Amino acid sequence: MEDLAAEVLQGSVRAMARIITLVENQDPRAFEFLGSIYPHTGRAYVLGITGSPGTGKSTLTDKIISVLRRQGHTVGVVAVDPSSPFTGGALLGDRIRMQRAAGDPDVFIRSMATRGNLGGLARTTADVIKIMDGFGKDWVIVETVGVGQDEVEIAKTADTTVVVLAPGLGDTVQSMKAGVMEIADLYVINKADRSGADSLVTEVRVRVEQDSHIKEADWQAPVLKTVAVEDQGTEPLLEAIENHRSFLEKSGRLEKVRREKTRQETLSLLTEEISCNILEKILGDGQFDDLIDDIVAHRKDPYTSVKEIVGTIFPEEQ
Amino acid sequence: MEDLAAEVLQGSVRAMARIITLVENQDPRAFEFLGSIYPHTGRAYVLGITGSPGTGKSTLTDKIISVLRRQGHTVGVVAVDPSSPFTGGALLGDRIRMQRAAGDPDVFIRSMATRGNLGGLARTTADVIKIMDGFGKDWVIVETVGVGQDEVEIAKTADTTVVVLAPGLGDTVQSMKAGVMEIADLYVINKADRSGADSLVTEVRVRVEQDSHIKEADWQAPVLKTVAVEDQGTEPLLEAIENHRSFLEKSGRLEKVRREKTRQETLSLLTEEISCNILEKILGDGQFDDLIDDIVAHRKDPYTSVKEIVGTIFPEEQ
Repeated sequence: MEDLAAEVLQGSVRAMARIITLVENQDPRAFEFLGSIYPHTGRAYVLGITGSPGTGKSTLTDKIISVLRRQGHTVGVVAVDPSSPFTGGALLGDRIRMQRAAGDPDVFIRSMATRGNLGGLARTTADVIKIMDGFGKDWVIVETVGVGQDEVEIAKTADTTVVVLAPGLGDTVQSMKAGVMEIADLYVINKADRSGADSLVTEVRVRVEQDSHIKEADWQAPVLKTVAVEDQGTEPLLEAIENHRSFLEKSGRLEKVRREKTRQETLSLLTEEISCNILEKILGDGQFDDLIDDIVAHRKDPYTSVKEIVGTIFPEEQ
Repeated sequence: MEDLAAEVLQGSVRAMARIITLVENQDPRAFEFLGSIYPHTGRAYVLGITGSPGTGKSTLTDKIISVLRRQGHTVGVVAVDPSSPFTGGALLGDRIRMQRAAGDPDVFIRSMATRGNLGGLARTTADVIKIMDGFGKDWVIVETVGVGQDEVEIAKTADTTVVVLAPGLGDTVQSMKAGVMEIADLYVINKADRSGADSLVTEVRVRVEQDSHIKEADWQAPVLKTVAVEDQGTEPLLEAIENHRSFLEKSGRLEKVRREKTRQETLSLLTEEISCNILEKILGDGQFDDLIDDIVAHRKDPYTSVKEIVGTIFPEEQ
């Protein structure tokens, strides 16, 4: 495992891909590896790009990668795609994206399956970002689909989050409710050559202004227009992203936010590990199955039973 | 708290509403209450209705409620709505739904805000279903928006899940990928008077058949057409739901699935309680903050640190 860590730090793409697979499979060895790579992380700038299907988010990501590459930066991309439990992974997505990245060894793109339980995806995504960061990527782009609670959690791992909307998709202020306002540092109205683009821009701007007043925020998310397929507006978008980065750095916000992220990540790591340990014990001796039988038969209730178990583990708490 | 439980069991709507608020706010007293109401649960049939915004899912739910009421059943509805962190709740949704239910004391409708952390929503929803169940509702309908991982988790609390699609929304087989096939016991193509409805029906049927072969399933989800605004197709839908219910009951599946649900719910209750206890301890003495400082400064890594903490709690595991 230490060899693999060394290989990653030396820039082996094959080693990095293998480690990511271990992380995705929740292999216990991944934990050890993440520990040894951690001192080399914290250098990459993490850019989140989120939007509904059909907004042209992937094309936009592609153009952003091109600009970053022209500026001499190395780029890692984590694409979080919903995937069928039957295909077992984002195969089509992988293929399209791999084609796009083919021939450029300094762009590493990884599609993540969204299988697995709640919360697990955000954790795995954060780990994969750390691997790319430790690998030496200057930028890590996290592309997420949609605006569910999962995506909001994942977006929180980004330093700057771009929310991509497009006219004609029902992407109105109404659909922006689900936590999007909370995570957006920048809005992009893509497909801005389509009708309805300008009114969408206005609508979003009005909403952003209202919210800035409510939150008394010192950052007001700009609303930009792009036509990603024609590479229009990509450079101004990168400038806006750099502006936000400067704002975060100069205001001390970046440091503060990253500390809070570290705290949250460590906490969830801790609860997860502790839960695993306790569950192994409890599930080990068959008593838990007996308890479930009693609960199913309504002889016991889960709430009191759980309090009792916790009471035996932490006797002084009761 | 016991008085409140007694009031709920005696049918006080006000008491039920108060308890649900306690559950939503994760008030510790709710735990006690849930324990005392648990013996009276397990009688309601839980129907999940899920679909993207614009499919007419709420109107359909409304019509289903009418049929159930005509059949003499009492109904509880849990509407899980995405909500802005700024409005602090699904206010508009509440108002619309409350109007609809006004005048019928045997329909209790509750909108749930989707604020709160990952996983919490599924847990709270399960608790609210239990409260309505213990209150004596014959049917509890859980209405969820969209098809994210959260919704999939929530849908798993239902006995029968209806997935609502509509033509012209981009609701194609492609968009069905994210776990929907996994949860759908029945499909409804609503707004079936619109163009594209028949081809959507065919598309979904083909997909369902393919999946049935792959899974060697003994239940093949029927695909029904409705025009909810005109109350067309509601009665056949209810019949299809009853068919599924009979299938579950006769095959012994209902019992098996409910046992597995009880097991999962108890497990997550347990891990959550244990985590809370441990976190209280660890966060209490300020040492955790020192650790975060070390991790932020990259003097320590979170992975090894977590292993060390877990090692002190479970010395024999190391």
